[in-house]
Amino acid sequence: MNNFDFKNPTKIIFGKDTIEKVKEEIPADAKVLLLYGGGSIKKNGIYDQVKTALADVDVTEFGGIPANPEYATLMDALKVIKDENITYLLAVGGGSVIDGTKFLSAAAVYDGDTPWDILTKNIRTEKGMPFGTVLTLPATGSEMNSGAVITREETKEKLAMGGPGLFPEFSILDPQVITSIPERQLANGLTDAFTHVLEQYMTYPIGALLQDRFAESILQTLVEVAPTVLKDPTNYQAASNFMWSCTMALNGLIQKGVPGDWAIHMMGHELTALFGIDHARTLAVIAPSHYKYNFEAKKEKLAQYGERVWNITEGSTDDKAYEAIAKTEAFFHELGIDTKLSDYTKDYEGTAEEVAKRFKTRGWKLGERQALMPEDAEKIVKMAY
Amino acid sequence: MNNFDFKNPTKIIFGKDTIEKVKEEIPADAKVLLLYGGGSIKKNGIYDQVKTALADVDVTEFGGIPANPEYATLMDALKVIKDENITYLLAVGGGSVIDGTKFLSAAAVYDGDTPWDILTKNIRTEKGMPFGTVLTLPATGSEMNSGAVITREETKEKLAMGGPGLFPEFSILDPQVITSIPERQLANGLTDAFTHVLEQYMTYPIGALLQDRFAESILQTLVEVAPTVLKDPTNYQAASNFMWSCTMALNGLIQKGVPGDWAIHMMGHELTALFGIDHARTLAVIAPSHYKYNFEAKKEKLAQYGERVWNITEGSTDDKAYEAIAKTEAFFHELGIDTKLSDYTKDYEGTAEEVAKRFKTRGWKLGERQALMPEDAEKIVKMAY
Repeated sequence: MNNFDFKNPTKIIFGKDTIEKVKEEIPADAKVLLLYGGGSIKKNGIYDQVKTALADVDVTEFGGIPANPEYATLMDALKVIKDENITYLLAVGGGSVIDGTKFLSAAAVYDGDTPWDILTKNIRTEKGMPFGTVLTLPATGSEMNSGAVITREETKEKLAMGGPGLFPEFSILDPQVITSIPERQLANGLTDAFTHVLEQYMTYPIGALLQDRFAESILQTLVEVAPTVLKDPTNYQAASNFMWSCTMALNGLIQKGVPGDWAIHMMGHELTALFGIDHARTLAVIAPSHYKYNFEAKKEKLAQYGERVWNITEGSTDDKAYEAIAKTEAFFHELGIDTKLSDYTKDYEGTAEEVAKRFKTRGWKLGERQALMPEDAEKIVKMAY
Repeated sequence: MNNFDFKNPTKIIFGKDTIEKVKEEIPADAKVLLLYGGGSIKKNGIYDQVKTALADVDVTEFGGIPANPEYATLMDALKVIKDENITYLLAVGGGSVIDGTKFLSAAAVYDGDTPWDILTKNIRTEKGMPFGTVLTLPATGSEMNSGAVITREETKEKLAMGGPGLFPEFSILDPQVITSIPERQLANGLTDAFTHVLEQYMTYPIGALLQDRFAESILQTLVEVAPTVLKDPTNYQAASNFMWSCTMALNGLIQKGVPGDWAIHMMGHELTALFGIDHARTLAVIAPSHYKYNFEAKKEKLAQYGERVWNITEGSTDDKAYEAIAKTEAFFHELGIDTKLSDYTKDYEGTAEEVAKRFKTRGWKLGERQALMPEDAEKIVKMAY
């Protein structure tokens, strides 16, 4: 096991009818900016619940934060924060709204030339503007971590940021929000959380027995609840386990003391930047090819995953590892998620070369051993056509 | 799954040669009281490591905190805190030293008549004197939670306390400390952590699929590493998994959203108060009888535990549940832990009646349904003779 530091100060408020508790968590004298996305919260009643809870609080609103939160939109929100002397941010939405809010938390206190530096110069935020979240879409885990990913349409870039000052002060997780989420988004959420765990787990054995089992616990639970979540989102038991699994998949715990890969995300981000494909679906496109291409380096963990998550008992380590990749791809298909780039776009020719070119420009070496070069990424993306 | 709040702000610093990092965590202008136990830290080198790290810090010392931290001793330490204007507490030790430090953190800021009230009147501490810990004995989980248990020899009482202000600010966990721990204490630590998980898990099914699997993950890991921990404490892989499992067993995570039992602890505490039996051993004495006595109420979870932790595949739910209890008792025996009260004292006659009398005086109803009455405790303790 590697040495590690672990600290996660976010307060989770989990359960039925908890949205009204938002009022108890925000200082009474705060000037709040309520941030949300495309407006679905106005149709499903969550907006009304939040507004009712905050009836006595000074609240300004900023809606319209898109999926893959866009820099230009966020700069408009930053202007509101400055103009209105906002002191507290409240994200009501999924990972995109929360990630956008984290960028704003950092940008609101950043005193450099341009907030874009936070992304390109990898500036870590030690203390941002305080914020909380009301989660409306389980998937990214952003509600209990300190990272974010921001997109800039202008340059077709999608970049990561973070820092210890970017944990939400609180996050409210009411599994009942799932009842109003379209099936497509639920499938995305399941795929996203599942791949988050894989990125932290599917590396090489390092003797972190407990972390391995925790990771497998989340994967097993997602596999167990997925059919019910898709078929009947009103099933509270499935919804609550789905929601808590998504949070635990990326709140830092299972990555402590172990190597991390994240190459699937890095390649996937480029597919979103280039084609606008849903984030989760890009992961499902890349993952099978990534595991096949890096089979020798990952086969021990692939086999362990096959045994423990998919109950594969027959065959050699290689057999179990191959079967585990097949099971993973089949799982994505069962969720209704296509796993080939050509399923999403006809213009895929040249994508692999473009991704490799971008990685080369940025000097990126990826994977748990930093051994995955741009030319490897090119081959993996091509395998995923 | 039940609704829950979860927040755990303790910073964990985990790994090889991390004790020197204690300096980075304590404010430079702090007046520190370093608290420790019977002096083993002076023999195993941990004291020297801490003192070297804190060479430039104003440190006063208070040693001699006994196992089952004793109120009278702690009141002497409280006098030092007041006399020396101490501003920061540093516990270097196991659960007893850390629990004692939590009492002092609360008592230092308490302005009621007598600090004993904190225990008898169940006064929760919202903000105590800040403190950190250097853990020398994995077992209780006190290094990452906000609870403590204090003993008063005078009245033969052992009482619990806690509050959100009693999380350590940081805890340093260097698994190498295990190399100098006597086998008896290692066996106690394994038993203590194992039983902590059981108390939060062995209740009734409530559909918290992920919490169940996390609990089972800790149990499986403790079972896997226990033989190596006892045979070769220098094995770092076993030591690190043991240490992290003990912390995760009682840092709040696995109890969220599920019912808790804790009756084994409540009965066990009385055996320590009456006979001075090691805390962990009292749990091993009570657990098998408790599960046999409450078999009907707990058999579904007992069977699940049998299947998943002990790989019991044959038989009915009842068969698996019985076999799981037998496996648990056999595990304690393999650790060298006796499981009958008569193995520890010849004066056991009348113990059951005394425990029942105490519970009756306090008006206690125990267990996950608060349905375990003093007369039930009497029968369970008698079964454990």
